[in-house]
Amino acid sequence: MDLAISLNKTESLDAVLDDFSEGYFSLSNENRKKLLLVLAKEYDLNRNQVRELLKQYLGLELQSGNEGEASNVDDGSVLFSAFYRIEKNLRQALKPTYDVLFERFNNHTGGLKFLSILRADILSFLEHENIVSLRALEYFLKEKLSTWLSPAALELHQITWDDSASLLEKIVAYEAVHPINNLLDLKRRLGIGRRCFGYLHTSIPGEPLIFIEVALLKNVARTIQEVLWDDPSIPEPEATCALFYSISSTQPGLAGINLGKFLIKRVITLVKRDMPQVSTFATLSPIPGYMQWLLSKLASQSVLAKGDNMEQPAGGSGSTFQENLLEPDEERKLMNSAPETCAGKNGMEVMLNLLTSTNYEWTSSAELLSALKPPLMRLCARYLLQEKKGGKALDSVANFHLQNGSMVERLSWMADRSEKGLRQSGGIMVNYMYRVEHIEEYAQSYFSTGHIHASSDVRLYTMPQKEHEATAD
Amino acid sequence: MDLAISLNKTESLDAVLDDFSEGYFSLSNENRKKLLLVLAKEYDLNRNQVRELLKQYLGLELQSGNEGEASNVDDGSVLFSAFYRIEKNLRQALKPTYDVLFERFNNHTGGLKFLSILRADILSFLEHENIVSLRALEYFLKEKLSTWLSPAALELHQITWDDSASLLEKIVAYEAVHPINNLLDLKRRLGIGRRCFGYLHTSIPGEPLIFIEVALLKNVARTIQEVLWDDPSIPEPEATCALFYSISSTQPGLAGINLGKFLIKRVITLVKRDMPQVSTFATLSPIPGYMQWLLSKLASQSVLAKGDNMEQPAGGSGSTFQENLLEPDEERKLMNSAPETCAGKNGMEVMLNLLTSTNYEWTSSAELLSALKPPLMRLCARYLLQEKKGGKALDSVANFHLQNGSMVERLSWMADRSEKGLRQSGGIMVNYMYRVEHIEEYAQSYFSTGHIHASSDVRLYTMPQKEHEATAD
Repeated sequence: MDLAISLNKTESLDAVLDDFSEGYFSLSNENRKKLLLVLAKEYDLNRNQVRELLKQYLGLELQSGNEGEASNVDDGSVLFSAFYRIEKNLRQALKPTYDVLFERFNNHTGGLKFLSILRADILSFLEHENIVSLRALEYFLKEKLSTWLSPAALELHQITWDDSASLLEKIVAYEAVHPINNLLDLKRRLGIGRRCFGYLHTSIPGEPLIFIEVALLKNVARTIQEVLWDDPSIPEPEATCALFYSISSTQPGLAGINLGKFLIKRVITLVKRDMPQVSTFATLSPIPGYMQWLLSKLASQSVLAKGDNMEQPAGGSGSTFQENLLEPDEERKLMNSAPETCAGKNGMEVMLNLLTSTNYEWTSSAELLSALKPPLMRLCARYLLQEKKGGKALDSVANFHLQNGSMVERLSWMADRSEKGLRQSGGIMVNYMYRVEHIEEYAQSYFSTGHIHASSDVRLYTMPQKEHEATAD
Repeated sequence: MDLAISLNKTESLDAVLDDFSEGYFSLSNENRKKLLLVLAKEYDLNRNQVRELLKQYLGLELQSGNEGEASNVDDGSVLFSAFYRIEKNLRQALKPTYDVLFERFNNHTGGLKFLSILRADILSFLEHENIVSLRALEYFLKEKLSTWLSPAALELHQITWDDSASLLEKIVAYEAVHPINNLLDLKRRLGIGRRCFGYLHTSIPGEPLIFIEVALLKNVARTIQEVLWDDPSIPEPEATCALFYSISSTQPGLAGINLGKFLIKRVITLVKRDMPQVSTFATLSPIPGYMQWLLSKLASQSVLAKGDNMEQPAGGSGSTFQENLLEPDEERKLMNSAPETCAGKNGMEVMLNLLTSTNYEWTSSAELLSALKPPLMRLCARYLLQEKKGGKALDSVANFHLQNGSMVERLSWMADRSEKGLRQSGGIMVNYMYRVEHIEEYAQSYFSTGHIHASSDVRLYTMPQKEHEATAD
């Protein structure tokens, strides 16, 4: 197997690594997977060695009295340097053999890019099947890539119309949020009233790992239409707001590695330096996970609600997870306005039917729009502020901006009428606001306690009082 | 203590790190040392946690049958994922707490430079006193710096007269091999027939971490005088040889981290691309450790030789380490030509006295030069090819070029007549030759077996046959 050669020290390394990556690219998906499994299993760590070191270490612990006061041992003692020595050896022994291959590729021209492709493949294999050895390899590689791609190694580059066509081509190809239709569209996004910045890494030249598009505006835009089609842009000296309207990463193999961590902060610093009159920094962001969350919630509640009409299941716990997502007047309005094709036994079923109807019919009826707007906006606020996973916002974009130190500022109805916008978030968009003086503080409190800062407008949607007000009118 | 704050997550991180580094710079050496000791001891790893994990791990080993066949366990088993999980946790637990501080500084503007200064301080403290906890911290920091400064993160930059004065000033300040006297001297080293390349890192802007000076010549120069004063240089199209005549690193805190690893290879590639007529790549290098090694050898042998005239010490092992470094005719010639001030009982004593005489008097006597040349050249070849430490060449510059894949090509007498050249190597210089087609092969064989490639001329000096030839004439 190619791999064996690549781990042999007596060969010419560069040629072997080139052969390895070329060989890899020529393999079918099935064979790539086989190769990666061999790598994960046969080039894993030496568990016998680890065990030996562990025993040595525990032997030391016993000698030291075993009372957990090892750090009080006299610094110059032989014992203490034995600790350091075994800990050092343990760190070494806990590195799987494939670490050597990763390190070598990192030092090899084009190697970092290759490793990123390797990880993209692994991630896609793991999506179909959870193989623990491959999962361990994936995690290990991710950690390595994170270290190599630390912000210290990334260079902030302003992308302009003067950049090479091959770089600009990548911007077009990778723009994931609001697709770029043609060269004119691209030119506009790099022209007056617009900025584009990317992080470049020395060893992946001419290809930003992540890039951000900025519009210079008078006010924080509510809808993406205003940003994409505000022809002509305002003169730059009149701008007071820098709006981040698109952030895209270009390498699927770097998923989960927070490349954008310092990007926004550094871009803010740059923009402030060049344009001191700009004082507001905000995003206009999609809410990519909202509809998925809402539809699954509606579907499961519909099932539970149906169960209500049948016998109570044994143990009577059937209704524990039941929850009417709708408030009474929302329910009423939905039931009244539902067309025949989308009828249902209750408001949630109607809502589910409406939202999943073909061609988003509900968006062309004023009545349906007005019936859907209140619950969709309210539940969106709940989704963003309260639905969490591991203490972090469930929505990936929300999590990204919150960990960067922003707050949830404003939700806007029908702010993205594109098919994608309707499918992901029912057309709702959100402004995250970066208040320069609070960025660090907000990032830290989100990081340590999961606390999400939000404007009072957005918070109001999630208040219990609102329920009372709503039933009162 | 500043440090405690910096590890507190609720504060504004950037400000704290700035405070920390400013605070550090304001401390006296003594207090810096104290701070670093606190860091090394109180922010070490949690040994109780490590011990817990070790026990869990050994528990698993026992369950798996203890027959060392863990890798045969079925991949999907719960046991196997437990292995991976504990190994992952162990890796994490084996990181000392101060790792957090290092990581944060690496992500902080100017942080990498600060860490390099920190390590420079630690190294100088350790020179005076070996403190195991500080040694462990130093080693850990070195490993981190190595990862962050992998060649993938370094950018090769050709330094020219068009670079900023602040960058060029650093070249003047850090040139460690052949000091630059003034701006004209510098301009010459960047002018026609010369090249200068440096490795830059994104997070230490405007300051090459290491740089190399190249002269374009017709032939491989033997002496540094030819290179520094060949005014005017030859027209570049006539050059067939690129001579690396100086390599300097600028950060004492990065000592021991091989930054030059790929520098020479990349420079060769660049030069070949721009000047296809250049086919010879060689260095003209100092031999910084030669005299130190030789003088201590001579001194100890003189002592042993004196002991010979006294009684044999008990056990009779006194002469085991005795060795006449000189061959018979070298001995004869030295004894005959020694002036009264440098007299001695034997050749080695005379040699020692000559080499340590004030103002290098021996260099102004033709007779002494001719008496010293044969043993100094011969012993120099032995020093370079045979004296090793841990399987690597004892001489640091030799080790650097050999691990980069060069061979020892030629020794030249009186090739550096500067005070420094005489003091370090008795004026001898060496050409290491980079044969493009063998670079990888030589680097690998040196790395794996310690084998040093050398031209037959140089090898001849160290041959036993030479002894016979010498006594025969």
